Amino acid sequence: MKIIIIGATGDIGTAACQELGQRHELITAGRSSGDVQVDMSDRISVDKMYAHVGPVDAVVVTAGEVHFAELVDQTSETFLLGLQNKVMGQINLVLAGLEKVTDGGSFTLTSGVLDRDPIRMGSAAATANGALAGFVMGAAIEMPRQMRLNVVSPGLLDVSVPRYGEWFPGHNPVPSDRVGRAYAKSVEGAVTGQVIIVE
Amino acid sequence: MKIIIIGATGDIGTAACQELGQRHELITAGRSSGDVQVDMSDRISVDKMYAHVGPVDAVVVTAGEVHFAELVDQTSETFLLGLQNKVMGQINLVLAGLEKVTDGGSFTLTSGVLDRDPIRMGSAAATANGALAGFVMGAAIEMPRQMRLNVVSPGLLDVSVPRYGEWFPGHNPVPSDRVGRAYAKSVEGAVTGQVIIVE
Repeated sequence: MKIIIIGATGDIGTAACQELGQRHELITAGRSSGDVQVDMSDRISVDKMYAHVGPVDAVVVTAGEVHFAELVDQTSETFLLGLQNKVMGQINLVLAGLEKVTDGGSFTLTSGVLDRDPIRMGSAAATANGALAGFVMGAAIEMPRQMRLNVVSPGLLDVSVPRYGEWFPGHNPVPSDRVGRAYAKSVEGAVTGQVIIVE
Repeated sequence: MKIIIIGATGDIGTAACQELGQRHELITAGRSSGDVQVDMSDRISVDKMYAHVGPVDAVVVTAGEVHFAELVDQTSETFLLGLQNKVMGQINLVLAGLEKVTDGGSFTLTSGVLDRDPIRMGSAAATANGALAGFVMGAAIEMPRQMRLNVVSPGLLDVSVPRYGEWFPGHNPVPSDRVGRAYAKSVEGAVTGQVIIVE
């Protein structure tokens, strides 16, 4: 398959690339790195990305920003940032890709653990993750041309522990190869409308 | 208790008022009706509402707009509308109310069935509902002054069937009094961080 992966350089994107790259042609996209540049929060930029790469069999998104802060320090603006970037960015990639992905192709989004196992300062992330779960549940039943739509929801990756572990007390790190395989399940498997939890 | 209810004139708001009004002082708020006018998607309007009504023991939100359309007819703008109104509107009421609700008070939001039991044209609603579930899960653990936060997620109300029933094939209508009692559970009970499903 020809697969475009947006956010390929992060820990989750790296895990997805290591798994999918064994069997598929990968095109990487990012704001400042990768084969193609894209700002997924900007629908015009997303349209340009698809026009540039041509038809693909699968879209994998492992990118998305949210603001981490104590609830009392969050503002309407900091919450909206996550909705515009992590949520609308991924939704933009689906909406714009509906005519660009081949028949029977797939979209695989990425959320995270914080809407089922919350941490301090994670309320905006939990909101974004929940939105993506709801989107996948609602939109999968309306996908045209037998296309599929899932979201991978990984716990804290083992490789991310040195940077982020202190914010996740008691969370069990998830081996990166398990996270990578979740993307294989979505891209190469047959499920749709699923939150694929990796714990 | 002194309770402010935003969106009191809708079917869900009416059910909440019928239950809570038996035992509490209700202040109703809405865009064009009620004791106080508020545009919950506008943080400044929300701040003014709280300044006008003074301290309250509970905030109940039964309002929120989303765009219903086939997935292929949704745009980035139509999705963002639901995130800005139904999601950020309810989050605004929590953020702005953190210093306005009395110690041990509560916030009760409203989502809906579509992120667990989707219908055609409901992808933006499912996204908004999921976001609210994630927000409640993430934010409840950080609420100051023993305040609580829940979201009621009702199925299609019996009284809403004449207007909306055709869009919900096979959904079992939910008696309005059951929906009303879910708000009593959140406001008068002790749970927090819950999606209170009414089916």
